[in-house]
Amino acid sequence: MMSSLDDTSECRAEVLAIDIGGTKIATALVAADGSIRRRQVIVTAAHTSADDLAARLLDVVSGYDLAAIAGIGVGTAGPIDYRRGVVSPVNIPAWRDFPLRRCIEHSTGLPVRLAGDAVCGAVAERAIGAAQASEWAIFMVLSTGVGGGYIADGKVLAGRLGNAGLVGHMVVHPGGERCACGQLGCLEVYASGPSLVRRARAIGWVGDHPAELLAACRAGDALAAQVVETAADAVALAIAQAAASLEIELAVLGGGVMRSHDVMLPAVRNAVARRMRDGVVSPVNVVGAHHSDDACLIGAGLIVHRPDLLTLSSRNNAAEL
Amino acid sequence: MMSSLDDTSECRAEVLAIDIGGTKIATALVAADGSIRRRQVIVTAAHTSADDLAARLLDVVSGYDLAAIAGIGVGTAGPIDYRRGVVSPVNIPAWRDFPLRRCIEHSTGLPVRLAGDAVCGAVAERAIGAAQASEWAIFMVLSTGVGGGYIADGKVLAGRLGNAGLVGHMVVHPGGERCACGQLGCLEVYASGPSLVRRARAIGWVGDHPAELLAACRAGDALAAQVVETAADAVALAIAQAAASLEIELAVLGGGVMRSHDVMLPAVRNAVARRMRDGVVSPVNVVGAHHSDDACLIGAGLIVHRPDLLTLSSRNNAAEL
Repeated sequence: MMSSLDDTSECRAEVLAIDIGGTKIATALVAADGSIRRRQVIVTAAHTSADDLAARLLDVVSGYDLAAIAGIGVGTAGPIDYRRGVVSPVNIPAWRDFPLRRCIEHSTGLPVRLAGDAVCGAVAERAIGAAQASEWAIFMVLSTGVGGGYIADGKVLAGRLGNAGLVGHMVVHPGGERCACGQLGCLEVYASGPSLVRRARAIGWVGDHPAELLAACRAGDALAAQVVETAADAVALAIAQAAASLEIELAVLGGGVMRSHDVMLPAVRNAVARRMRDGVVSPVNVVGAHHSDDACLIGAGLIVHRPDLLTLSSRNNAAEL
Repeated sequence: MMSSLDDTSECRAEVLAIDIGGTKIATALVAADGSIRRRQVIVTAAHTSADDLAARLLDVVSGYDLAAIAGIGVGTAGPIDYRRGVVSPVNIPAWRDFPLRRCIEHSTGLPVRLAGDAVCGAVAERAIGAAQASEWAIFMVLSTGVGGGYIADGKVLAGRLGNAGLVGHMVVHPGGERCACGQLGCLEVYASGPSLVRRARAIGWVGDHPAELLAACRAGDALAAQVVETAADAVALAIAQAAASLEIELAVLGGGVMRSHDVMLPAVRNAVARRMRDGVVSPVNVVGAHHSDDACLIGAGLIVHRPDLLTLSSRNNAAEL
């Protein structure tokens, strides 16, 4: 019988956090206050087999002092099914319905909790970041993709299987550009880093990196400004949806694109004011995230330290809770 | 000191439910199984004063045997602030920040719980209707307006102040027609009963009532079919948003427009299939509501019988819980 994750005394110990992304896996020890140490990174090759990749991860995990660890939290690219403890990260083709939770539990003897990466990020911002004072909020990551998490009554909504907060695939322009996912006009088509660059190049801008584009916008480049404004408006539409559906009062924006927050924050705030100006929906405050780079890793630790900040399905997940 | 709403023994008794709409107020006794009796209706005139309207309501309320009642549940048109217990229904100009909860509590000596009308409807469908088996769902009312409620982990999300589920004012077409609320392209502009008629008449259809329009669609009228398809697509976009944001598996559609469910349900299902076909978002089942006409009244009773089915803000509402 594994020890419970909810034992208060254990919550004082450190948690091993694992952040599984498309190109790399990060691990670290996370304390209850969110501080991290002993970070390690594994670069994942696209052609690794399921078992090889798991073996590399378990090798790194076994290098930590497992006897001193309260539990293991995993934040992962999706889709996932946390009820079964399986993951199928889009960018890790070797793992399809891969039983990651059981795999790590068997190897370590420690209890493992699993959530989506952006859900973990939202937990980090809720616990020790920009959403500490807000119980109804949306967290958005503008990065290579666009993800997020909804905070309702102070808790991040993990969703039925753990895949809530897929804000990158909210349709903001129904007749818009086709997304890689197949839908038309997803937020990600307008507001991810690669989309910013692609859309700017399509209208004649010359450059390769989102940071360059945002710098060009800062310097007054009209093409760059046009693309940034479209992105900001798309983000504002997603924020307005969250306000109409869940009566949120706060939007927390993180991810690589938001490193240029001096450009992005005013653009999104203006778009939100324009879109929601006359509406019956309550106004939303827009702020930058506190933990852009480490939000998922910190959050993967905090879902073990602070399970009260996460709404998982209460049904069919005895193994989880 | 008023008795607690959460006492199990009291939950066996009946609750007085009050459904406050734009043109009428309905009251009834609601049992724990959702059955209703002794219904009464007050027609509200637009020019009544705040106190006159309250006095008429309290007069009806005092006609019930209050000694046999466990508590009072109010479902009301919004906006509301349930933390303060005040209501400002758009179509009742006499009530602006009107302290309805305190007013009824003082008059009756009974505890009063307050929620939005569509939130109450969602509670009814969750407790004894089409969403009984689903813990992640959206409820939508297509009626004079469009409202709704989100069900997450089995509970209806009331929102920060009680105004969540404002699905009628989700922007589905950002460059679309202006809504009465001021925003462009709200769902309500495409899918409410009056909008169906207005949009059909604008392209040459002759008729006055949504039911006529849906009958014309059923009979093969091309203009009617075009308007219904646009409405169904707008509803599908809102369902897709809910699926991306909260990973819902079920959409429950109610309200007057859905009385023609043989026309509307297939249209919405086709639109959902088309919109979400290739996406990464999990599929959503679309069904009709079980309690179209009485959902709010039943739900107003059930928020007292079953407070466990409602997520209110846990902070700042000692008076409520």
